[in-house]
Amino acid sequence: MSENKIALAIHGGAGTILKSRMTAELENEYRGGLRTALEAGWEILLNGGTSLDAVEAAVVELENCALFNAGKGSVFTHDGKNEMDASMMDGAAHKAGAVAFVRNVKNPIRLARLVMERTEHILLAGDGANEFAREMNVESAADEYFFTDFRYQQLLEARTRGTVQLDHATDEPQLIEEIAGFKFQVSNEKPETLNLKPEIKNLGTVGAVASDWRGNLAAATSTGGMTNKKFGRIGDTPVVGLGNYADETCAVSCTGHGEYFMRAVAAFDVSARMKYKQIGLREASFETIGRLTSLGGEGGMIAVDSQGNLSLPFNSEGMYRAHISEDGDTEVLIYA
Amino acid sequence: MSENKIALAIHGGAGTILKSRMTAELENEYRGGLRTALEAGWEILLNGGTSLDAVEAAVVELENCALFNAGKGSVFTHDGKNEMDASMMDGAAHKAGAVAFVRNVKNPIRLARLVMERTEHILLAGDGANEFAREMNVESAADEYFFTDFRYQQLLEARTRGTVQLDHATDEPQLIEEIAGFKFQVSNEKPETLNLKPEIKNLGTVGAVASDWRGNLAAATSTGGMTNKKFGRIGDTPVVGLGNYADETCAVSCTGHGEYFMRAVAAFDVSARMKYKQIGLREASFETIGRLTSLGGEGGMIAVDSQGNLSLPFNSEGMYRAHISEDGDTEVLIYA
Repeated sequence: MSENKIALAIHGGAGTILKSRMTAELENEYRGGLRTALEAGWEILLNGGTSLDAVEAAVVELENCALFNAGKGSVFTHDGKNEMDASMMDGAAHKAGAVAFVRNVKNPIRLARLVMERTEHILLAGDGANEFAREMNVESAADEYFFTDFRYQQLLEARTRGTVQLDHATDEPQLIEEIAGFKFQVSNEKPETLNLKPEIKNLGTVGAVASDWRGNLAAATSTGGMTNKKFGRIGDTPVVGLGNYADETCAVSCTGHGEYFMRAVAAFDVSARMKYKQIGLREASFETIGRLTSLGGEGGMIAVDSQGNLSLPFNSEGMYRAHISEDGDTEVLIYA
Repeated sequence: MSENKIALAIHGGAGTILKSRMTAELENEYRGGLRTALEAGWEILLNGGTSLDAVEAAVVELENCALFNAGKGSVFTHDGKNEMDASMMDGAAHKAGAVAFVRNVKNPIRLARLVMERTEHILLAGDGANEFAREMNVESAADEYFFTDFRYQQLLEARTRGTVQLDHATDEPQLIEEIAGFKFQVSNEKPETLNLKPEIKNLGTVGAVASDWRGNLAAATSTGGMTNKKFGRIGDTPVVGLGNYADETCAVSCTGHGEYFMRAVAAFDVSARMKYKQIGLREASFETIGRLTSLGGEGGMIAVDSQGNLSLPFNSEGMYRAHISEDGDTEVLIYA
């Protein structure tokens, strides 16, 4: 059936993920969450579905998994709320939709798709976006659905320190343990990376990129934002070209310290390098991460081109990620 | 004193500006508003000031002029409020700041600069951005300051038609007349362009780009958004890379139908073409407007490079604009 090679990649955030502080059980939980999402998207591609449906299905699974900072697992704002951002782009139609600061929406990625398909706008935010959610009758969820104890502990810790907090910081396994019930030793030494400065926060996001049998590309990205977030900060995730982008050249979903991805116009930059420098996906995506590094930014991205080539570069210690393509094995990875 | 050639360009929005429906008096009002803003920025550059200070000063003047859709002259949302967006980027430091949906802030561009200089974030929106404005003690203005009768008439008309409204539509001179007291004939025929579809709205924005004697570039853009706006729509204006961008290559400020500029990642696209295709400012900016045209988008942009070259391309019938450079005359223009 295939005319083009289908391919799918997903991520569950990048950051300081130290193997020395991770248990086998916890690793398995993460890998299981990634695998479930990958399979949901892959089944759609295998059955001749569109890349748009595939990335939506994969991100919905990641949003439904409490381990990742999106949907159910979203972090808390300074006011103890869960506010979520999501965006989606259809590379073939070159259309995009996104939402910022939505509350009580079970799957923000579905709402982003409705913005793309039902409105003349691209980005809706705040109360207006919540009003749109009600008009569209998307599935809602009560505050308790989004309450996860370890995220709340993160907020309390961040408030105490007066910082916003890196999502996949080295102290996260310690906090996760409180809900997952794992027995693993937490060292009392405080590694350098625990001294979280405000400028290296929020590396938590989920995303998916896919190429379907028509060679059409799509990208989807979703996040619960930044722990202890104030002042209505919008990051790169819900913005076309910054944290999420797709056209006929490539589809890209980013994760990392949002402000640097914004300044680098990171997602679109991959496409621009491919088109204007006439280079391939891998070279372009590594150049963009190189640019990010030179700006001082930390994180990574997943990218696919219309031939089904995949690239998953990052400059952080780890990135929760998985990928599958027609002639490749399935890989589910965490560390560099 | 100059080591580089200083240059400044400003715009007051693009759209369907028909000479046949404009009076000489009204034209003079627009030209006067543009000239005041140009002079404010130019004086700073001439005295050895930075491009950042120059674009801020120019945009403050445009925000203070009721004729343009930004600051004082902002259009009304569906709920009869004035909500404003603004962004600023410092090309030398490669830093950006922006606000979306701020209310009762006299000069949103000043608040955007404070986001850039006083926070680790780039974009603040909604209630959070208003809270930040209060913490920063920026100059506020009461609702009455932003009330202009012709903008309110635009809202009533848009509500009646159930549309959001093109800012510089052909019916605007008719409405402006109501406050400016000009006597000019309004035809009863309804030209095609009056049948405003939702997808061709919001061409009203103001902006400035400058190159200073160090060759440092800056861009600033500000808007009152879209008449009859609902659902918390955010356009291209407050987003780095989309409606506003500056780096070491060029500085760009866009105006037009925001959603198309977002999909085209228009402001950054000029820089990407210059860097990756190794072409000049004029060619790159015209290529970007060509890309916009191929997507079906309407509008224009002002751009400057570090040698003080200027380019002001647009594909709409007119764009309120003015520019000045060290070895060039001052030009204040409206039509193509």
